[in-house]
Amino acid sequence: MTQAPRIAIDAMGGDVGPEVMVGGAAAARADFPDLRFVFFGDEAVIRNEIAKHKTLADNVELVHTDSVISGEDKPSQALRRSKDSSMGMAIAAVKAGEAEAVLSAGNTGALMAIAKVALRTMEGIERPAISALLPTLGKTDVVMLDLGANAECDAENLVQFAVMGAAYARTVLDIPRPRTALLNIGTEELKGTGILQDAAARLRAADALPLEFTGFIEGDRLSRGHVDVIVTDGFSGNIALKTIEGTARFVADLIRNAFTSSLRSKFGFLLSRPAANLLKRTLDPNNHNGGVFLGLNGLVVKSHGGADSNGVRNAIGVAAKMAKADIIRKISNDLENFPNKAIEDAAE
Amino acid sequence: MTQAPRIAIDAMGGDVGPEVMVGGAAAARADFPDLRFVFFGDEAVIRNEIAKHKTLADNVELVHTDSVISGEDKPSQALRRSKDSSMGMAIAAVKAGEAEAVLSAGNTGALMAIAKVALRTMEGIERPAISALLPTLGKTDVVMLDLGANAECDAENLVQFAVMGAAYARTVLDIPRPRTALLNIGTEELKGTGILQDAAARLRAADALPLEFTGFIEGDRLSRGHVDVIVTDGFSGNIALKTIEGTARFVADLIRNAFTSSLRSKFGFLLSRPAANLLKRTLDPNNHNGGVFLGLNGLVVKSHGGADSNGVRNAIGVAAKMAKADIIRKISNDLENFPNKAIEDAAE
Repeated sequence: MTQAPRIAIDAMGGDVGPEVMVGGAAAARADFPDLRFVFFGDEAVIRNEIAKHKTLADNVELVHTDSVISGEDKPSQALRRSKDSSMGMAIAAVKAGEAEAVLSAGNTGALMAIAKVALRTMEGIERPAISALLPTLGKTDVVMLDLGANAECDAENLVQFAVMGAAYARTVLDIPRPRTALLNIGTEELKGTGILQDAAARLRAADALPLEFTGFIEGDRLSRGHVDVIVTDGFSGNIALKTIEGTARFVADLIRNAFTSSLRSKFGFLLSRPAANLLKRTLDPNNHNGGVFLGLNGLVVKSHGGADSNGVRNAIGVAAKMAKADIIRKISNDLENFPNKAIEDAAE
Repeated sequence: MTQAPRIAIDAMGGDVGPEVMVGGAAAARADFPDLRFVFFGDEAVIRNEIAKHKTLADNVELVHTDSVISGEDKPSQALRRSKDSSMGMAIAAVKAGEAEAVLSAGNTGALMAIAKVALRTMEGIERPAISALLPTLGKTDVVMLDLGANAECDAENLVQFAVMGAAYARTVLDIPRPRTALLNIGTEELKGTGILQDAAARLRAADALPLEFTGFIEGDRLSRGHVDVIVTDGFSGNIALKTIEGTARFVADLIRNAFTSSLRSKFGFLLSRPAANLLKRTLDPNNHNGGVFLGLNGLVVKSHGGADSNGVRNAIGVAAKMAKADIIRKISNDLENFPNKAIEDAAE
């Protein structure tokens, strides 16, 4: 794999659009000086944004597109309008081998629908999943999936997510045999739905898989650092992810209110500002931006719609690292080497 | 309703047992001096604990029981062993009218199973739900249900939960027309499962219900104070509740690490201790202890298994306030006055 990956950027997606997408790319150059960018969207607007950043003076291309997939477009509408859109053309660049990864902050459902049609799912994978790294108290982040692509999943989907999530953890977190758990409402074998009990039985039986299945995990343990991969359906995963975000913001707001409620507190807060900054750094969702669509024949990274340029910078970092690590090929190898057999065994 | 409710306490349930259950009751006397207690469990052990607290010198009864429902007992086992157990006999006291509420920190599944058989579900309610008050940035807490009684729910269950949750909010939070939302992975009408879309359509159509249906709410908005009642199935509700707990603890741990990482931070932290204490008070799950089983012909309050005596004190407070407000009769009236018709309309 090239050491200078090309990232196709849908410059029009997200709540803000070109300003943060281009600004984030400019900032990402500080982390990856040789990274190449291809921006897709309104040429005049993007050119204007590029001009603001000296670091974007070279290795930048621009492809004008006439239309934008909006946040309101249903996946079916997005598919019909994909061809001329910034999102669709950025994905097409990956399919054509003109970019190693695509980044979009646009409509998640549309991005998944277009990416599925254009890039197709990997052999052995029925449905792609959205995964991301979440902060923990342990030494490394935890991989969690599915975060919202599939509201309803069967046991086979969950087993495939486990295989993909473990491959992600092996590649990006460098953990040879990731500890992998299923999210549930209790840890006893008989807790939760039949689908979860079925998935657990398959994973327990599949000891050839390159992961250590540790059973069920509850919502209060997600950030403890006791596991490396947390597998769930897209409904529960999305609820859990957003609840983490919302609770972190809630606590940050409480802190702000609490520490500014008296002069003494204010003074204390000033003195402890380095600590407060560390806290903010750990909790700011921009610092964990970049959801990866796993299970496609191509690298698709979703930036949070509300991310700022620092968030986009981090999502580009995720895309760059995964492209450099050639993760698609590695997951593909994993699926070929172990899980086809193991998954079949597990599925019996 | 009596101004001095009798609370039947399963003294044996929970991770600690009699020490915190009796200690919590003693502490609750400070909040409700006329409260009467009936403890169920091992007589010698409980008598020993009661002797430690002067506030328990009067208005306390003790019923010896030979067996205890353990955390490992399946609901079916618990039902068979209910008769002589501290949990079963405490519930039986409510059924017999000898207590206005029962409190247990034991096995949730067992408590629900025994309570359902002994107290039966209210007319018009198919399944009871576990509800609790969660802290928000708004003026009042938010009622959330189901928190784990029903891993899988249909649209009718969710509509009934909405009616019960709204009645709870009207009684305990004193909100005449509670803003009520369904937890989902997006706010657009077509997001989520068919069950959720069906429940939303029924609630939208049921404008005779004494609640304001505000549509879907996402996981990052639970603590914002924008709604008064959040309705979901027991799987997602349990995941969300525990994720809130886990994230709050995660943040508290980060704060501790961050603020003690340098001498300057330590000093700042000491100065801002009143603010930090305020934060701890808001986030400590003991301060929001007390899950209420709604939909039964009797008041059943579940204390967190890991609660300390302060947590038990708060759960007793929940039971006492609800008994004094005569919530069971109020919900029953609500069901009679509005929802039978409204639910039927909504269900069409």
